[in-house]
Amino acid sequence: MTQIKTKFINDPEQVTPELLEGYVLAYPDLVTLGGENIVLRTHPKDESKVAIVTLGGSGHEPALSGFVGEGMLDCSVVGDVFAAPGAQRVFQALQLMKREAGILLVVLNHSGDVMSANMACQLAERVGIKVKQLLTHDDISAGIDAPLNDRRGLAGCVPLFKILGAAAEEGKTIDELTEIGERFNKQVATLAVAMRSCTHPQNNAMISDLPEGIMEIGMGQHGEGGGRKPLVSADDTATEMVDLLCQQIKPVAGDQVMLIINKVGSTTQMELNIIFRKAYKELEAKGFKVGMGRIQELLTVQEQASFQMILAKLDEDHLDYLKNKRADTPYWTTIGK
Amino acid sequence: MTQIKTKFINDPEQVTPELLEGYVLAYPDLVTLGGENIVLRTHPKDESKVAIVTLGGSGHEPALSGFVGEGMLDCSVVGDVFAAPGAQRVFQALQLMKREAGILLVVLNHSGDVMSANMACQLAERVGIKVKQLLTHDDISAGIDAPLNDRRGLAGCVPLFKILGAAAEEGKTIDELTEIGERFNKQVATLAVAMRSCTHPQNNAMISDLPEGIMEIGMGQHGEGGGRKPLVSADDTATEMVDLLCQQIKPVAGDQVMLIINKVGSTTQMELNIIFRKAYKELEAKGFKVGMGRIQELLTVQEQASFQMILAKLDEDHLDYLKNKRADTPYWTTIGK
Repeated sequence: MTQIKTKFINDPEQVTPELLEGYVLAYPDLVTLGGENIVLRTHPKDESKVAIVTLGGSGHEPALSGFVGEGMLDCSVVGDVFAAPGAQRVFQALQLMKREAGILLVVLNHSGDVMSANMACQLAERVGIKVKQLLTHDDISAGIDAPLNDRRGLAGCVPLFKILGAAAEEGKTIDELTEIGERFNKQVATLAVAMRSCTHPQNNAMISDLPEGIMEIGMGQHGEGGGRKPLVSADDTATEMVDLLCQQIKPVAGDQVMLIINKVGSTTQMELNIIFRKAYKELEAKGFKVGMGRIQELLTVQEQASFQMILAKLDEDHLDYLKNKRADTPYWTTIGK
Repeated sequence: MTQIKTKFINDPEQVTPELLEGYVLAYPDLVTLGGENIVLRTHPKDESKVAIVTLGGSGHEPALSGFVGEGMLDCSVVGDVFAAPGAQRVFQALQLMKREAGILLVVLNHSGDVMSANMACQLAERVGIKVKQLLTHDDISAGIDAPLNDRRGLAGCVPLFKILGAAAEEGKTIDELTEIGERFNKQVATLAVAMRSCTHPQNNAMISDLPEGIMEIGMGQHGEGGGRKPLVSADDTATEMVDLLCQQIKPVAGDQVMLIINKVGSTTQMELNIIFRKAYKELEAKGFKVGMGRIQELLTVQEQASFQMILAKLDEDHLDYLKNKRADTPYWTTIGK
């Protein structure tokens, strides 16, 4: 087996099952394994309510399985490092989650995940499982108003999980949930910036190559390229990103917005606080009200020095689901009002 | 000013005030600034209850200020990067927190912090402020049963904040809190392991120098030296650390223990899940019950590739305060029972 000299692992081929086993041992009151690489709630919600399910590769911890629990996800189907889980495993999860109320399958727009989801949904429909898909495509690095197919799903899925999970707990139907989620998807935009790459935990290769002093705006979650330029200050970086995100979601003065900085890897929280500070001030200067903020590791890319800025225009119901409704998952807890 | 080419910052001299300003803008419902580099709860608890206060340098985010909020800290006094805040600022915080019930000042054993705290307490006592100190010294890298003065305070302070904060909310007196805290301090031990160093955000210098393929067991939070050896597997690392920690806290079969992996920087959560898995199994094999687990960024050291393993023998009250009592802070939320 490949000798990995940069990480604390055992057999590179066993990274995914071992990390999931460790995860459910750490939070047994909240999460459990329901088959190979399928993470479920330890205390499932009532079957009369719609199940919220997602899928994606490992290596992005705490995403996506870190948000399984009351008020967010009911099930996360996990692939190997940076790899889609395949249709059979997704189908297996859909069988576990089968219910009259239906399953809402949230799919981040990456080709492998989309293919796994589409095939699994075909298999599920043949055996009478009610399932609808909700595709996320919050990345704006392909350009403002780029075709949806060209826009990847980034960490904007995490607040979406919070909104959908809270609405599902309230008993919203699958059509109502789809409307709530699609409305959020139209109003959310994410942009990533990276400054140092990271190594793949199974082959020790750098997933991209960024020289010191250079930043890349728009880098994808697996090293996909964006635009390179010399590193500028935190304030200039934040200002540029806010401007680009606002071009996409086009808020108007008086709008409530959500600003989340997703810590992707080795960029420190110290830096992200400084980025948040300037982004907040820029948004307030444009006349928007930041109704919800967060600076947290949500969806990482190994030790890449990078962050994602997530900006959303919030309707009243979105804000209420995000801030006031209870969530009890390992990596997102809201006490609720 | 020094040009920093590895981080998203502005003026290196302004890192601390800027990061704190960003922090309170992100979580205005929970935290606020009560003077230069003093973080307070936005909704303070009743003055009839003992205040829990701590102090320490910045650069370790989310620690220590990330745990200010209901059920944990009432106030965090922040120094510059890796530097103690100085006696005057600590004294200012003690004046803000002055109350009949008293103030419990939790001090991590680092010489600058200890000096700042001692001088501030002398100043406070002269003006009639009731304050007691609680020193933490969970690091075991100086050797098993080393004199307390030689043992630094590591991330074991964070579960201590949770315990003390919950007990203070219940209305425990300052003497009762001291007893609860000292009993936990005797039963907790922490060990750090590092694999790559990090740069100081104000002068761009590496804080230590670790060659690839080498790990250092016992590295301190500011690059202080431990013992170097070739990198071994995650399982072997976890086993060695559990053995050392158990030599210090000497649990006996049937004991409840707390196992927390503190993510220090660029070591990924994927790796830490794998470490947790083996550590948990080792503890269960020794006959202990892991009553409380967590894998999280608590106290970081910039982008150092490193983690700290925190092991504590838990009494029933400690377990109850940790798991069942409500906490509402930006980086530790417990819904409570």
